[in-house]
Amino acid sequence: MVALWLIGASGSVATTVAVGLAALRRRLSEPIGLVTELPVLAGAGLAALEDIQLGGCDLRPPDVVARARRMAEVDRVLPERLIDAVTDDLEVYAAAIQPGAAAATCARDPAAALAAIQAELRRFAARCGVDRAVAINLASTEPPWDGEVPADADGLLRHVAAGGALPASALYALACLDLGWGYVNFTPSVGASLPALDQLAGRRGAVHAGRDGKTGQTLIKTALAPLFASRNLRVLSWFGQNLLGNDDGRTLSDPDARRSKQRSKGETLPALLGYRPAAPVEIEYLPPLGDWKVAWDHILFEGFLGTRMTMMTTWQGADSALAAPLVIDLARLCDRALRRGERGLLSYLAMFFKEPMGATEQAHERQVALLLRHLAAAEETP
Amino acid sequence: MVALWLIGASGSVATTVAVGLAALRRRLSEPIGLVTELPVLAGAGLAALEDIQLGGCDLRPPDVVARARRMAEVDRVLPERLIDAVTDDLEVYAAAIQPGAAAATCARDPAAALAAIQAELRRFAARCGVDRAVAINLASTEPPWDGEVPADADGLLRHVAAGGALPASALYALACLDLGWGYVNFTPSVGASLPALDQLAGRRGAVHAGRDGKTGQTLIKTALAPLFASRNLRVLSWFGQNLLGNDDGRTLSDPDARRSKQRSKGETLPALLGYRPAAPVEIEYLPPLGDWKVAWDHILFEGFLGTRMTMMTTWQGADSALAAPLVIDLARLCDRALRRGERGLLSYLAMFFKEPMGATEQAHERQVALLLRHLAAAEETP
Amino acid sequence: MVALWLIGASGSVATTVAVGLAALRRRLSEPIGLVTELPVLAGAGLAALEDIQLGGCDLRPPDVVARARRMAEVDRVLPERLIDAVTDDLEVYAAAIQPGAAAATCARDPAAALAAIQAELRRFAARCGVDRAVAINLASTEPPWDGEVPADADGLLRHVAAGGALPASALYALACLDLGWGYVNFTPSVGASLPALDQLAGRRGAVHAGRDGKTGQTLIKTALAPLFASRNLRVLSWFGQNLLGNDDGRTLSDPDARRSKQRSKGETLPALLGYRPAAPVEIEYLPPLGDWKVAWDHILFEGFLGTRMTMMTTWQGADSALAAPLVIDLARLCDRALRRGERGLLSYLAMFFKEPMGATEQAHERQVALLLRHLAAAEETP
Amino acid sequence: MVALWLIGASGSVATTVAVGLAALRRRLSEPIGLVTELPVLAGAGLAALEDIQLGGCDLRPPDVVARARRMAEVDRVLPERLIDAVTDDLEVYAAAIQPGAAAATCARDPAAALAAIQAELRRFAARCGVDRAVAINLASTEPPWDGEVPADADGLLRHVAAGGALPASALYALACLDLGWGYVNFTPSVGASLPALDQLAGRRGAVHAGRDGKTGQTLIKTALAPLFASRNLRVLSWFGQNLLGNDDGRTLSDPDARRSKQRSKGETLPALLGYRPAAPVEIEYLPPLGDWKVAWDHILFEGFLGTRMTMMTTWQGADSALAAPLVIDLARLCDRALRRGERGLLSYLAMFFKEPMGATEQAHERQVALLLRHLAAAEETP
Repeated sequence: MVALWLIGASGSVATTVAVGLAALRRRLSEPIGLVTELPVLAGAGLAALEDIQLGGCDLRPPDVVARARRMAEVDRVLPERLIDAVTDDLEVYAAAIQPGAAAATCARDPAAALAAIQAELRRFAARCGVDRAVAINLASTEPPWDGEVPADADGLLRHVAAGGALPASALYALACLDLGWGYVNFTPSVGASLPALDQLAGRRGAVHAGRDGKTGQTLIKTALAPLFASRNLRVLSWFGQNLLGNDDGRTLSDPDARRSKQRSKGETLPALLGYRPAAPVEIEYLPPLGDWKVAWDHILFEGFLGTRMTMMTTWQGADSALAAPLVIDLARLCDRALRRGERGLLSYLAMFFKEPMGATEQAHERQVALLLRHLAAAEETP
Repeated sequence: MVALWLIGASGSVATTVAVGLAALRRRLSEPIGLVTELPVLAGAGLAALEDIQLGGCDLRPPDVVARARRMAEVDRVLPERLIDAVTDDLEVYAAAIQPGAAAATCARDPAAALAAIQAELRRFAARCGVDRAVAINLASTEPPWDGEVPADADGLLRHVAAGGALPASALYALACLDLGWGYVNFTPSVGASLPALDQLAGRRGAVHAGRDGKTGQTLIKTALAPLFASRNLRVLSWFGQNLLGNDDGRTLSDPDARRSKQRSKGETLPALLGYRPAAPVEIEYLPPLGDWKVAWDHILFEGFLGTRMTMMTTWQGADSALAAPLVIDLARLCDRALRRGERGLLSYLAMFFKEPMGATEQAHERQVALLLRHLAAAEETP
Repeated sequence: MVALWLIGASGSVATTVAVGLAALRRRLSEPIGLVTELPVLAGAGLAALEDIQLGGCDLRPPDVVARARRMAEVDRVLPERLIDAVTDDLEVYAAAIQPGAAAATCARDPAAALAAIQAELRRFAARCGVDRAVAINLASTEPPWDGEVPADADGLLRHVAAGGALPASALYALACLDLGWGYVNFTPSVGASLPALDQLAGRRGAVHAGRDGKTGQTLIKTALAPLFASRNLRVLSWFGQNLLGNDDGRTLSDPDARRSKQRSKGETLPALLGYRPAAPVEIEYLPPLGDWKVAWDHILFEGFLGTRMTMMTTWQGADSALAAPLVIDLARLCDRALRRGERGLLSYLAMFFKEPMGATEQAHERQVALLLRHLAAAEETP
Repeated sequence: MVALWLIGASGSVATTVAVGLAALRRRLSEPIGLVTELPVLAGAGLAALEDIQLGGCDLRPPDVVARARRMAEVDRVLPERLIDAVTDDLEVYAAAIQPGAAAATCARDPAAALAAIQAELRRFAARCGVDRAVAINLASTEPPWDGEVPADADGLLRHVAAGGALPASALYALACLDLGWGYVNFTPSVGASLPALDQLAGRRGAVHAGRDGKTGQTLIKTALAPLFASRNLRVLSWFGQNLLGNDDGRTLSDPDARRSKQRSKGETLPALLGYRPAAPVEIEYLPPLGDWKVAWDHILFEGFLGTRMTMMTTWQGADSALAAPLVIDLARLCDRALRRGERGLLSYLAMFFKEPMGATEQAHERQVALLLRHLAAAEETP
């Protein structure tokens, strides 16, 4: 049994996770898009898809069924027939979504908020009949945060107890890690990226990973930039445009939130190329796109004898359909890590993130090798 | 001293190699696009760029200077000023190009042709003051060949001595390998791909590699297809269109020659994906493009819950500027292999080819790792 | 009352026409994509959408409901909910589709086939309670035809009576025009393009138009090529690639049928530019695309001082959703023409066709002006 | 003799005009890209290209030759050989460029600036031996201006005499129009768009036109948007991205100047479609692009039965090579108007501008018709 707690449980990604788990359980769909269903991972000791139990919290109303219908009828991302077939499951899921009222008190009284969150988490674990669960942050991106907090676990706990400020995402990460859970930050928010939280995770036997799910443009960058590097072609500029129509797009139309996202996207190329070409990343909110996302990249590069050439890529994907299977993958991989007694940062999960923590490796193919090596090694030493 | 013999010495790629070596020697250009100039290969024991001496043969008139001017003024691939600066070197190079008259007799009298080719090769080696040289096949693509020849070296030598047929590219490969040279097949023609030639190379201490230089569309495929595979996204169709305006394009407008190229491009995806999506590759000859090449790919794939998404890529490159540095790379790497006593097929050169021989690895990033590992290992055991 | 007879009544376009008329009648959809619903045509005296009554014939089984479902669930062209809501109407439409058995006898006994077709057409008109109807050819593209037939109406009628050969599409056009109906050829087949048929139409008070509905790539060409012409920019090459996954695509994967289509697409540019650039048009059948169609155009042009520039366009459309409203438009416009006593070729309908008959105007904007001027002039002289 | 005065005489567009006129005069190039060289305008009474005499002013140093070389060698927009061949002409042109010092005093003492400008203009006319000349504004885009000035000519003259503020571009327009010259505003700056200036032009027998040369993205919009309108397809969003590397791009990386440009680009679609879809226009300064400009448009539209489709266009052009011939066209057309005694706003020049003044027509094809009709009518009444 994997108990999976979704922070942002009523959003498009969470809705797609719920639809997907129900559809897979009912054998209405094939497990396409799930890394953990690759044949090569068959013996890796992952929990069965049927054994994932879902819960979560959201500040928004839990209108999961309505959202699923809209994604089917308006956005044409999900099949209408499929929504019909799993409506019962969606209603059960929606009914259990917690209002996450605690979040509102984060700023006012962090200590109380922490206690409220942990109570909520414990109730969910109890309901699922497990000791430890995995929480995945799918909430809206926060603005960049530059506050200062103690760098050690005890200091941070004292800071919060004393009413010190902490972004909601970090407070939530603290709540999870302190309970020895798995915590994954699928957004560019702070989450568990503070040193003190990593220390806490190690101490409590918790595991964590992040940051910002790699689903589109950055995914392509991490596959293509190594190509230019390996052929000694000099990238002069790499312009990336994103068109987004969903809630994520609306959040990112706020310049502050956009800066968070741009930062998490901005360090990929320098890490892959070894130098820093002109590489702006722009994000545009276009409501008519709905859940569809278009990423257009224009790459100008210099080849032999100064010849200038270009490559352009266009990626048209359904944001939630790209993200949801990764959420399921991460839940299974964290669950597996907890069961095996791993602790702290799971840096071998780098391939899932735009801004992998603890792993300097940005090239996608080498990140994949990192994951496979870890799982294979673990198999050998049961 | 690396003596480099170009088969197809008057074509665009060879012309660009000649311009490039002259420009690099005169410090008029930076070594961009050369894999062998990557910092990571600094200690690999490669010959200096200044030490490469060029020769070659071609059935066409040796109008290298005129071609270089046309590539500068009409195609705008090469800088006009640069051509001015290296015209003297180009004239020297062009003056030494052999008419390759032997080729004409290939079909009529293979044994005589073989003798004539080898005499020519020996003269070039003597002129350069070396025992062994490297030959690279840049000639026009031959139609597919399905003749039968003995699979062992002795049998093949007897076959030729007895006037048995052999494609010109294979006869040339035989000539080189029999002399203990390095031979690289940068085209989809037969070249050294016959088992008997590999055996001969092993016996004579010759080295060889091929086949068909990976410069554009296939390069991208070998970087992107592993991405889809690693995320368990199912490629439904991958359509590839090539627009070409140079001699290569004209050759490929012949359906027979095109079949050779399509074959060398066709096996990439199944090898990378593990299944065989609809993946036609089309080639169109558009003379106004000159040396520029446009590759457009349309990839339809299925993600989570059957959602269909697409990726499109457009690659606009100068064919010769992409190919020429690889030719130089391959010359240096073969020369290094000969000096170290390697023999036979250099399968670690897979990253340079559309249809790598002896290496089942098609994913570009893993091909790069293969090369780096080989060179690093060699360093350790001098 | 407009009685509309669809030749190819079970195909995707016809199915979409049937779904659309039902949806519009039930106010479930807005009349988007219909030229005849433009506000500027409000006073043009067109029949109401509710007054169109549908019938037709097809050699294929009349599985219209199944096809509509597939277009909704697999192709995601039509909304599933909408199909549910109009299933009854579709069943009624499907039940009345005639097997078009006559077509089979075309080749064997043209005179008998003609009689059978006309009997069928008369039954449909009687059923609708009208004297004259409009027939629109949506059947699969025929291979090019280069037979010779008399150029005058009487000669052609004698030719057929004597068992002379005629392509099925032309025989059908003959059947319609001889009855004084409207006939529209929405395909590149011969249809009513024979001079004798035009003469017959004039004599019988019939009207006709064609040929080959302009729904995608050619539509764009007729908007963009005038741009290059008006700015005196010289188009060097214009390459057009079409990816198609539906029945139309399968038919066109046959080289003969493809030649018909390429011909109807090939004359557009020379007419618009005044010269003949390299302008190949390719068609590729990619079944996974279903009813979706991708057209990619690459335009290389020369500007001031020989500077070479490019434009590329990508068009991703649902073939049937683009064609169906034009079919309805053409039915209404032909019906109006019949009611007003127009006769013969309706050359003012040029904007609907890839290969407009009787109109040398290929520029889309000027074709639109042609239509508007005709309708406005007619308004003034009631 | 057409005396043509360029404001911004050292910039890329002006440099290309100078190179082009010299090349055309010396028969080194064909008159491609010039609207006024279309065969249909052969009898329109335009001055010969050889009769255009160039002058101008610029705040920047008159390094026209260096710029032309850079455009040839680095940007590869102009052919290097051509620059060599016309270097003498460029040096003569550059030597006569005035520092435009007056501009500096615009803000401080508008009346003195006006006098200085007019003295400069008179000297140029005298040097060319003409009474009246044509001035074209190619200077950097000014920030948006929302000052208030009198709406009548006399009031405006008094305003300036009294030291009242006026944007430099408007002061320059005033200087020209007051002298009875032709004045064209090729930028989005204020120029002659003030009502008082139009009145003044009418009174002085001057002519003017503008605003903001239509060279790329807007050009395409004015050809494609009428297509969607004519087919009753509903544009849901039209996103336009511009990548620019030249001085123009640098100027527009300033948010204020960018607003001017976005405004001049923003009204095109609503005028063409009759409604206002989400249609952001973004501009990104990417220095490595040099004089090349990439415009990428993503159009999401709704068709029949709510089907959503997309069109994307990519335009890769050399900014100066697109603009320069239009500058020459406008000079010839204004000269012709002056000679024929036309006065005031030449609204029939709409096809040259992003934001045509006095013409509500935005559809390119109809703008072309407007120009042709005017010139044809004029021919008939000599």
